[in-house]
Amino acid sequence: MKRREFFKSASVATIGAAAATTLATPAIAQDVYNWRMVTTWPKNFPGLGVGAQKLADRITNASGGRLNVQVFASGEMVPGLQALDAVIDGSAEMSHGAAYYWQNKSQALSFFTGVPYGMTSRELASWVRYLGGQEQWDKIYDQFGLKGYLSGDTGTQAGGWFKNELTGVADVQGLRFRTPGLGGQVWAKLGASVTNMAAGEIFAALQSGTLDAAEFVGPYNDLALGFYQVAKNYYFPSFVEPGLATELVVNKSKLAELPPDLQELVSVCAQASYDDVASDMYANDPRALRSLVDDHGVQVRAFPDEILEAGAKASMEVIAEIREGGDALTKETAESFISAFNLLRERTEGTDAPFLTARQKYIKY
Amino acid sequence: MKRREFFKSASVATIGAAAATTLATPAIAQDVYNWRMVTTWPKNFPGLGVGAQKLADRITNASGGRLNVQVFASGEMVPGLQALDAVIDGSAEMSHGAAYYWQNKSQALSFFTGVPYGMTSRELASWVRYLGGQEQWDKIYDQFGLKGYLSGDTGTQAGGWFKNELTGVADVQGLRFRTPGLGGQVWAKLGASVTNMAAGEIFAALQSGTLDAAEFVGPYNDLALGFYQVAKNYYFPSFVEPGLATELVVNKSKLAELPPDLQELVSVCAQASYDDVASDMYANDPRALRSLVDDHGVQVRAFPDEILEAGAKASMEVIAEIREGGDALTKETAESFISAFNLLRERTEGTDAPFLTARQKYIKY
Repeated sequence: MKRREFFKSASVATIGAAAATTLATPAIAQDVYNWRMVTTWPKNFPGLGVGAQKLADRITNASGGRLNVQVFASGEMVPGLQALDAVIDGSAEMSHGAAYYWQNKSQALSFFTGVPYGMTSRELASWVRYLGGQEQWDKIYDQFGLKGYLSGDTGTQAGGWFKNELTGVADVQGLRFRTPGLGGQVWAKLGASVTNMAAGEIFAALQSGTLDAAEFVGPYNDLALGFYQVAKNYYFPSFVEPGLATELVVNKSKLAELPPDLQELVSVCAQASYDDVASDMYANDPRALRSLVDDHGVQVRAFPDEILEAGAKASMEVIAEIREGGDALTKETAESFISAFNLLRERTEGTDAPFLTARQKYIKY
Repeated sequence: MKRREFFKSASVATIGAAAATTLATPAIAQDVYNWRMVTTWPKNFPGLGVGAQKLADRITNASGGRLNVQVFASGEMVPGLQALDAVIDGSAEMSHGAAYYWQNKSQALSFFTGVPYGMTSRELASWVRYLGGQEQWDKIYDQFGLKGYLSGDTGTQAGGWFKNELTGVADVQGLRFRTPGLGGQVWAKLGASVTNMAAGEIFAALQSGTLDAAEFVGPYNDLALGFYQVAKNYYFPSFVEPGLATELVVNKSKLAELPPDLQELVSVCAQASYDDVASDMYANDPRALRSLVDDHGVQVRAFPDEILEAGAKASMEVIAEIREGGDALTKETAESFISAFNLLRERTEGTDAPFLTARQKYIKY
């Protein structure tokens, strides 16, 4: 803490004395840090896993090799769902994944990935950076000696692949649907028979009839898994995943060993990555969707209003359960989230949404 | 170029040999660069000017003071609208402003700030980073020895302050409206008598009756200028400014003098700033709007459909005029923009917009 304050004062003084000259300073010793980033993603997973690798490379390059980050895909060093524990016990310095994987550590962590009918990627960043979200996140991760940073976002996801068309809530009863997490809880409230299974098992389960429907990410990720071969109805949007933020998590003791400039570099690279991954997803999702429709005969469909409405009611119940059922910190985080949500949606729904509606109606190139 | 390639190979080799140890390398000499950032913003201008200062501080801090960036507000070193020329002639190393200020250098630069009924902030970043936009931008700025980076975005702006309510296009005829740039061209096509004037003159012109209406940015910036005292109808959204991106521009010769790690640091800090400024605007716009409505009796209004539709037609004409009326590079840039726009809107309008519509309809906390 003091070290950082000293650093800040030092740079202010330097700026005050700025002149447009290049000065050679006395030679100084530079430590090199070799860090391991364990991830929850398969190797080369589009958007999110690729984003983790790009983030690691960027830290390495922008530090001139002083902070070298080596990436491990899920299973290479530890199984994906043990990534956070590896950072807690110090066997890795950082992890890249999604905060909601660690709900067993705190229910409140879901809010930093995204919750059903919750914030968009832009709203989430505004809450975390400007409306108290980071402070709540720090309180949660402090308990484990960790520091979390937003590091990417998928944007609003696809609602899923359904073998049969949906006409209303009645069609959801007993539907065998692969959809994990809080989204799964919402669909269960609507009557679906919700199961979770690893990404690699979904295709076979849809093909054999073990599943009637499955939800994964969006066109960019889903195309590669071939779901279009066994389910032709592709529903939009995922009202249970309006955004899915990834996180970079760093062991706080290891972070404190870095000089202040490298600490700041980790933070700035994570923030740049948040923009970069979302940009990647927004560019590549529609390209993949064009291929699904044009080359593979996929039908793009919208959920019936009855399902959107019932899903909203169920989503508010799920959030209320988290808010009331967790510890004091979870309650406090839920309240910070809802307060920011109520503010931010005034901007998004009052300005952005009517713009998009008008553009959709009147612009054609 | 070769230097960068060498650097890349060097870091890959280092990563390959990674082990979780900290090694002290031999002492090396570190050059210090003191750079000047001239901006087009008044001192402490919310969101955009503050964002320029934060970006400069972040480059300074994350470089450990090796690249010290001192910020000059509009007029401190050169007048705001001479910022780019100062970077071209090398009297400053970088500028922070908006690309559309330099339309006299190339009409195509408008696309990198935002055009009427064009891209949102997320769409713009996707085009620039993943769909060929940066390549076009580089071709334009190469002619002047410059390199441009996105460095912030206001998000979709407010449509403006109007003394009287608007019921349709008839009310726009002869309306004395302060609205600059391409947006002004659109409103002129609708029949408005469009003028431009500096921000500091708008209030008095509204008060004296020289103006019937004025458009500036959005609630966060507009609140401070006091327009609510003389015009009570605040229209949303600005269909002519669906986003306004700021740029960081660097003199390419100066950039080439930096070691590769600092070159990468400038790029990563600009990208982080793009996310940061938008997060700031989205958090603070609705707070300011609440104050305008609750404390100052402002009426929030939506433009009549007739104006939205006529505005769309006029916007497409303005884009066609740029596309057909400029040089080859402008035409090429316009085509890259429109191709990316047609792709990206499938994502935004097909997934994000229906999510926002459903959320607005069904969610209440």
